[in-house]
Amino acid sequence: KKNYRIAVLPGDGIGPEIMQEAVKVLTLVGEREGVTFTCEEGRIGGIAIDTDGTPLPEETITLTKQADAVLLGAVGGPKWDQNPGHLRPETGLLGIRKALGLFANIRPANMHSSLVDASTLKPEVVSGVDLIVVRELTGGIYFGEKKRYDGPNGEVAEDQCIYNEAEVERIIRVGFDIARKRQKRLVSVDKANVLESSRLWRKVAERVAKDYPDVELSHQLVDSCAMQLVRAPKQFDVIVTENMFGDILSDQAAMLTGSIGMLSSASLAAGSFGLYEPVHGSAPDIAGKGIANPLATILSVAMMLRLSLEMDEAAAAVENAVWSVLEAGHRTGDIASDRSKAIGTVEMGQLVRDEL
Amino acid sequence: KKNYRIAVLPGDGIGPEIMQEAVKVLTLVGEREGVTFTCEEGRIGGIAIDTDGTPLPEETITLTKQADAVLLGAVGGPKWDQNPGHLRPETGLLGIRKALGLFANIRPANMHSSLVDASTLKPEVVSGVDLIVVRELTGGIYFGEKKRYDGPNGEVAEDQCIYNEAEVERIIRVGFDIARKRQKRLVSVDKANVLESSRLWRKVAERVAKDYPDVELSHQLVDSCAMQLVRAPKQFDVIVTENMFGDILSDQAAMLTGSIGMLSSASLAAGSFGLYEPVHGSAPDIAGKGIANPLATILSVAMMLRLSLEMDEAAAAVENAVWSVLEAGHRTGDIASDRSKAIGTVEMGQLVRDEL
Ligand SMILES: CC(C)[C@H](C(=O)O)[C@@H](O)C(=O)O
Ligand SMILES: CC(C)[C@H](C(=O)O)[C@@H](O)C(=O)O
Repeated sequence: KKNYRIAVLPGDGIGPEIMQEAVKVLTLVGEREGVTFTCEEGRIGGIAIDTDGTPLPEETITLTKQADAVLLGAVGGPKWDQNPGHLRPETGLLGIRKALGLFANIRPANMHSSLVDASTLKPEVVSGVDLIVVRELTGGIYFGEKKRYDGPNGEVAEDQCIYNEAEVERIIRVGFDIARKRQKRLVSVDKANVLESSRLWRKVAERVAKDYPDVELSHQLVDSCAMQLVRAPKQFDVIVTENMFGDILSDQAAMLTGSIGMLSSASLAAGSFGLYEPVHGSAPDIAGKGIANPLATILSVAMMLRLSLEMDEAAAAVENAVWSVLEAGHRTGDIASDRSKAIGTVEMGQLVRDEL
Repeated sequence: KKNYRIAVLPGDGIGPEIMQEAVKVLTLVGEREGVTFTCEEGRIGGIAIDTDGTPLPEETITLTKQADAVLLGAVGGPKWDQNPGHLRPETGLLGIRKALGLFANIRPANMHSSLVDASTLKPEVVSGVDLIVVRELTGGIYFGEKKRYDGPNGEVAEDQCIYNEAEVERIIRVGFDIARKRQKRLVSVDKANVLESSRLWRKVAERVAKDYPDVELSHQLVDSCAMQLVRAPKQFDVIVTENMFGDILSDQAAMLTGSIGMLSSASLAAGSFGLYEPVHGSAPDIAGKGIANPLATILSVAMMLRLSLEMDEAAAAVENAVWSVLEAGHRTGDIASDRSKAIGTVEMGQLVRDEL
C-alpha cells in the first residue's frame, strides 16, 4: 500500500479553515484509492513570526524537504504589515521557493461555464478562457542583488535582474512540455526591445523550440501581452515568462475569470516535487467566520495528485466533484450572485466530499 | 503675435498620414487664436535608419531642442524588426526620451460614452472610466547598466534597475500635481514587498505626500493593481509608477477602454516642454491605405496646447470637436461597429476641422 507524506502549511487568515476542508478531501481520496496520506503540519508566515520569530522556521524547511509534496493555505495579514522585511510573512513564501528550488509556477486561469457572469468581461470574450501562465519563480529581479546607499541625488536603490541560460532553459522547457499536452501553442513573454535578460530569454526560447517542432512558439512583449489578455484572452494556450512579468500577468489573467476564489497554483521543483496553494490571499477580513471559499484549496489538492503523485484519475475525480457542486448551484459568498443563499466553508467542503 | 516652433516627427507606418491631419488641425487652431505654429519636420525611427543610418539623428535632437514642443506619429515596422539593437526604431524613442529629459509620461485612459461598446469589459464596469497613468520614463530598469557574459551555467544576462531619490521625487510630484487638479486620489504602484527600488519609491511617496495634504495617497502592489484594473477600473483617478510597471499598466489600462485608436499621451520634461504622441503604434499593415484613425494624434495636439503652450481653451475646443464628430456617428474602421460605413483618415480630419 502506498504512503505519501504531505507537508501541510495552513498559514494565516482563512488559511487554516480552507486547509481543513482540503485535507478532509485528501483523506477521502486516500480511502477510495487505497493510499495513505500522512499529513504533517508546519508553520509559515505570520503565525510562524509570532511563534518562532521568523516567517520560515528551519523546522518547516526540514518538514517540507522530507515530504512528497506541500499544501499551503495563505500567508499575511495587517498584524505583520509594518514589520521589517525579514519579519514579514511573504518573506517566508520567497524563502520556501528558494529553499525547495520551486522554479516553475504553474498558474491556470480557467473558468467553469456557470461562473462566467462573475467576470467583469463580456461573456463572449471570457467564456471558454483556458490558459496557463508558467512563471519562473526563483530568479530574475526577485532574487538578484539589492543595494541601498547615499548618492549626490539622495538615497539610491538598486535591484539586479539576473538570469543565466540554464535557468531560462529549464522554465522554457516546462512551458513547452505543458503546451505539448494541450493546444500546442506557447507564447513566450519578454521585453526584448529593452532588457538584456529578455534578449537572452528569447534566444534560449528559440533554441529550445527546435526540440519541440510540434509546438508553435511565438513571442510577445510584456506590454502587448497585458493588452492582449484584456482584448482577447481566448487566444492564449500557454504563456511562459520570467518572475516579475509572471507575477503581474498571472494575477491579471486570474482576475479576467472573475472568480479568483476558484483558482489554484503549483510551484514545482525539478522532478515531481511541488507546492500547491490557492491563488487568493489570506483574506484577514473574513478569517474565522467560516464563510471562505475552500474550492481553490481543494483544487490545489487535485493539482498535487496530478502533478506530484501521478494520481491523474483521482485528480479528475476531485475536479469533477467540484464542478458538480457548482452545477448544482451551490456557492460560497465570493462567487454567489445572491449572497443570502451563500453557504459556508465547511458545508462546501462536505458537498464536495459527498460528490466524491 | 505669438509664434511657437513645433517639431513634427511623423515616423513610420501610418505616422505620416495621421500626422498630416493633426498638423492641419493645429494650423486651423493657430488661425483661430491668432498664433503662428511653425512646424518643422524631423526624422525618427525606421525612416531615419533608412536615410541617416541611425534611428535618432543628431539633426533631429537639435531640431526638437529648439522647439517649444514635439509632435510624434509612431515608429517601427517589420522592415527593421530583425535589426541589431542600435538600429531599431524604438531605440530612437528611448533615445529622444533621454536626450530631452522627458521623465514624465502622462497616459490618460478614458472613453467617450459613445464608444463604450468597443470595450471587452461590461459597460457598467468601464463606462465613465477616467484615469491617468503617470509613468516615470527615463530611469529604472530601462536605463540601468546591462551586462552579458559567460558563466558556469551558460550565458548570463543582467539588467540593473536603479532609482535615486531625486528621480523618484520629481515624478511623484507630477502625480500629486495632476491628482490635485482632478479627484485628488493618487495610487502609487510599486513592489515594495520584493524590490529595494520600490521601498525607496514608497518612502519618497510618503514624504512628498506631506506637501499635498489635500490629495489622498494610497499604495498598491503592481500585481494587485493589474487585478484591480480588470476588476474595477473606475476606482482609479491617478496612478503613479516606475518605468517598467508603467509600461505594462498603462497599456493594460488603455486596452480596457477598447478604443486604443483614440488615446494620446504626453512625455514631459521639467518646465513646460513635452513630446506628444498617440498611444497606438505605426500599424504597418494599414499604412498608406488612408484608413488609419487620426483622432489620437489630433487629441495629442490638444494635450500639447494644454500642457506645453498654456492654450487651455483651444485644447478644449479641439477635444470638443472630436467628441462632436463621434456623437454625430462618424467612425474610422478601428472603432466602427459597422465597418462598411467607416470613413478614411483625411475625411475624419476634415470633419474635426469643420466642427472647429
Ligand atoms: C507575496 C509576493 C512576494 C508574491 C510574489 O510576488 O511572488 C505573490 O505576489 C505571489 O505572486 O505569489
Ligand atoms: C517601444 C518601447 C521601447 C516603448 C517602451 O517600452 O517604453 C513602448 O512600449 C512605449 O510604451 O512607449
